Amino acid sequence: MDNPFFTNKGPVKISEILDILNLKSLNLNIEQLVKNVKDLQNAETNDISFFHSKKYKNLACNTKASFCITTDTLKNDLPVNCKPLIVENVLASTSMITARFYPDSITDNFDETCENINQTSFKDKVKYGKNILLGSNIKIGTNCSIGHNSIIEKNVVIGNHCNIGSNTIIRNSIIKNNVKILDNCVIGKHGFGFFPNKKKNSRYPHIGIVIIEENCEIGCGSTIDRGSMSNTVIGKNTYLDNQIHIAHNVKIGQNSIIAGQVGIAGSSIIGENVRIGGQAGISGHLKIGNNVEIGGGSGVIRNIPDNTKVMGYPAKNIREFLRDNKWYIKQL
Amino acid sequence: MDNPFFTNKGPVKISEILDILNLKSLNLNIEQLVKNVKDLQNAETNDISFFHSKKYKNLACNTKASFCITTDTLKNDLPVNCKPLIVENVLASTSMITARFYPDSITDNFDETCENINQTSFKDKVKYGKNILLGSNIKIGTNCSIGHNSIIEKNVVIGNHCNIGSNTIIRNSIIKNNVKILDNCVIGKHGFGFFPNKKKNSRYPHIGIVIIEENCEIGCGSTIDRGSMSNTVIGKNTYLDNQIHIAHNVKIGQNSIIAGQVGIAGSSIIGENVRIGGQAGISGHLKIGNNVEIGGGSGVIRNIPDNTKVMGYPAKNIREFLRDNKWYIKQL
Amino acid sequence: MDNPFFTNKGPVKISEILDILNLKSLNLNIEQLVKNVKDLQNAETNDISFFHSKKYKNLACNTKASFCITTDTLKNDLPVNCKPLIVENVLASTSMITARFYPDSITDNFDETCENINQTSFKDKVKYGKNILLGSNIKIGTNCSIGHNSIIEKNVVIGNHCNIGSNTIIRNSIIKNNVKILDNCVIGKHGFGFFPNKKKNSRYPHIGIVIIEENCEIGCGSTIDRGSMSNTVIGKNTYLDNQIHIAHNVKIGQNSIIAGQVGIAGSSIIGENVRIGGQAGISGHLKIGNNVEIGGGSGVIRNIPDNTKVMGYPAKNIREFLRDNKWYIKQL
Repeated sequence: MDNPFFTNKGPVKISEILDILNLKSLNLNIEQLVKNVKDLQNAETNDISFFHSKKYKNLACNTKASFCITTDTLKNDLPVNCKPLIVENVLASTSMITARFYPDSITDNFDETCENINQTSFKDKVKYGKNILLGSNIKIGTNCSIGHNSIIEKNVVIGNHCNIGSNTIIRNSIIKNNVKILDNCVIGKHGFGFFPNKKKNSRYPHIGIVIIEENCEIGCGSTIDRGSMSNTVIGKNTYLDNQIHIAHNVKIGQNSIIAGQVGIAGSSIIGENVRIGGQAGISGHLKIGNNVEIGGGSGVIRNIPDNTKVMGYPAKNIREFLRDNKWYIKQL
Repeated sequence: MDNPFFTNKGPVKISEILDILNLKSLNLNIEQLVKNVKDLQNAETNDISFFHSKKYKNLACNTKASFCITTDTLKNDLPVNCKPLIVENVLASTSMITARFYPDSITDNFDETCENINQTSFKDKVKYGKNILLGSNIKIGTNCSIGHNSIIEKNVVIGNHCNIGSNTIIRNSIIKNNVKILDNCVIGKHGFGFFPNKKKNSRYPHIGIVIIEENCEIGCGSTIDRGSMSNTVIGKNTYLDNQIHIAHNVKIGQNSIIAGQVGIAGSSIIGENVRIGGQAGISGHLKIGNNVEIGGGSGVIRNIPDNTKVMGYPAKNIREFLRDNKWYIKQL
Repeated sequence: MDNPFFTNKGPVKISEILDILNLKSLNLNIEQLVKNVKDLQNAETNDISFFHSKKYKNLACNTKASFCITTDTLKNDLPVNCKPLIVENVLASTSMITARFYPDSITDNFDETCENINQTSFKDKVKYGKNILLGSNIKIGTNCSIGHNSIIEKNVVIGNHCNIGSNTIIRNSIIKNNVKILDNCVIGKHGFGFFPNKKKNSRYPHIGIVIIEENCEIGCGSTIDRGSMSNTVIGKNTYLDNQIHIAHNVKIGQNSIIAGQVGIAGSSIIGENVRIGGQAGISGHLKIGNNVEIGGGSGVIRNIPDNTKVMGYPAKNIREFLRDNKWYIKQL
């Protein structure tokens, strides 16, 4: 995972990790250093990973991680090089460990490093409106504009020929060339991810970022949350209309067209050349294929294969939708 | 009802009230003073109340109000101590009387009392960004932050350890401890309540406020309207995702979790430990029990008892939803 | 069409138009000047129009345009005075020609002409908050207010007794008397109209504007896009709740009431006295009659005649909706 913005406070001794998880020392060398926390696929030797669902068995078998937070049931799928740390709630434990490595990724209070663009080196490079604030660790390419009252908070890379609207807030994001982000958007805030707790919910860290590829357009009033353990990605030449909500870890392929007020829940993967009608909703953790068309107002609650047209709530193949509404269609 | 912000311009002579309602003097002592306008339950001696639906018969029987705006059909349910004022449209008449007592509660134009936080006594107490505006009658506790361009308009109490995002507007609200309100929200504006009129609709007063209890989080781009004759309340430790709309008088219990783009229409009561999936909508004046789960995209148009899981439009019990979509589920 | 804001860079020689469309000279006088590009109904002699669907046959028969972009199949419906220019994609070609006449109508980057209201002649005429920006070509009537951080970009006419909220952005719009626009709205930006192209989509020009008639109210966080070849119009005394999206070319009649989070897709025409419940969606290019009621959460995908009440997805007559959900209603 591309994670240029959050500083890894590791390495961390395995003894400290055991303490955080309230685990006994097992048979480990408690002085061993753990370098980073990553998902099963990206973890390397001396990293710690997590494995919480059979769904990821194939990835678990092949992980290079030296440690893995998991359950008693799942531990046997891990390779010999990877020592299981058995816990009750894998995701909650992973969250605690991620917070140890990346303490800056949990809260998203306003960026105190911001100053007026007038007082930065960008004042001669960017075309800008009134009252623009820029945080630390920002790069902006050539021929870009930023509208009035917008805030480019810390950790943002903007390519060439990009236009940011007014009243828009961006952080922890990489915006490629020729992207337009219109007014009143919020891009790169943490997702709606937390562990419910009767007294006080606890947020999990969001170490992912938002990546908006070349030639995209994001409509007014849209929100795109950054990822938790992976990135949120909008593919090349994909256009989003107004008031759209893209949750954490979502990935949208290139050349897709998404109409107003659509919502895509966490971790869903949308293919290329996908068209989504207004107000449609897509549940979390789904896979929508390439060249899929989703009718306006649909509620998608399962995977959709390539080249399919669906409509309805729950969304079904357009042929089935028309059959079920035959009386209706006849009257058209 | 907790109503600390709107000034009661009463007492008002009953003769003036009769004039406003275009009623004859009846057999009343026209010099009698009316202290306040309240709902049936909260009204006290010398207050005026209103009774517009059989639904509230029990409350009407027991009201302590000295006067009650009602209809000829309903008047007999009132106790002897309460004199009925018979009108054609109870709510429109109540609105006119409420406007007399609380003239400041009707319009929500921008707050002219605002000044930059730099020029207020909060400048040494609160951590704040650029261009923050504060109105009159504001209290802010310890260890709070307010992001760039946010406007805390008049009549706001913020507890300790609260974080307000950027570009957010708040008025007429009480925010308890440990609350986070993210970017681009509008909290505490009047609700969508008015009397339709062919020439020019007339707004009714909103004398309620918004109360956000401890440990809540409100996502980016959300709107929470204040109440008309009661308050809008978000219970303790309840989390709202992005782009949610909570209408006037809604009450949400504690430990609830509400996903992105959900809308809850006016005066509905949501229980504790309720989970609502993305884009679900709940009609007005409903009661959703404790521990209810509402699937994403659902449209709820009737009351839901405790401990129920519903889905669909109209939302039905999850078992019925699955039965009706059996062919669909089989293919999963 | 009322189009006071975009400057017509015509006349343009027909030879240049043929070049843009990559057409041979046909039998035309290549020196002939074309004055403007308009729809079939509004075009006059020496204008160019476009005809892309049988649906508009009646308008085509009677157009006064001297030239018309159309297809080989449709060309025979044009009158003799109107010379057909045969292309493969009528709308894409029309877009290219419109861009030649109105180059300023394509992009909506932030308005560089804005300056603080303090520095304009409006400072003594308008009641205003902090940090208000005004662009060029603005008119504001008497007794108006503009809230903090709002941006009235170029090409805006505001009538008398209007109240604009805070954090709101308006451009290319005519706002009549007694209109309220609440906080965080974006009014008058281009619609979601473009020609999909695998490498890079191309925007089509939006030469329409937004017209908000007298006595309207627009709720917080709403977006109203301006039209492409016609205007987007909100009729007199029509009220919109929060978080509503009105797409380009939509027309809404007078005295209508539209609840929160409703979306209306491009070019739909909504009648007078229409009531639309929360979260309902209306597809594009539909006609909704007068006195229609649309239940909350409905998805309207076809025309609705006058005086009809509909509900459901797809939205059907309320009697059919109740019949189909009889088991459901019984339990109420």
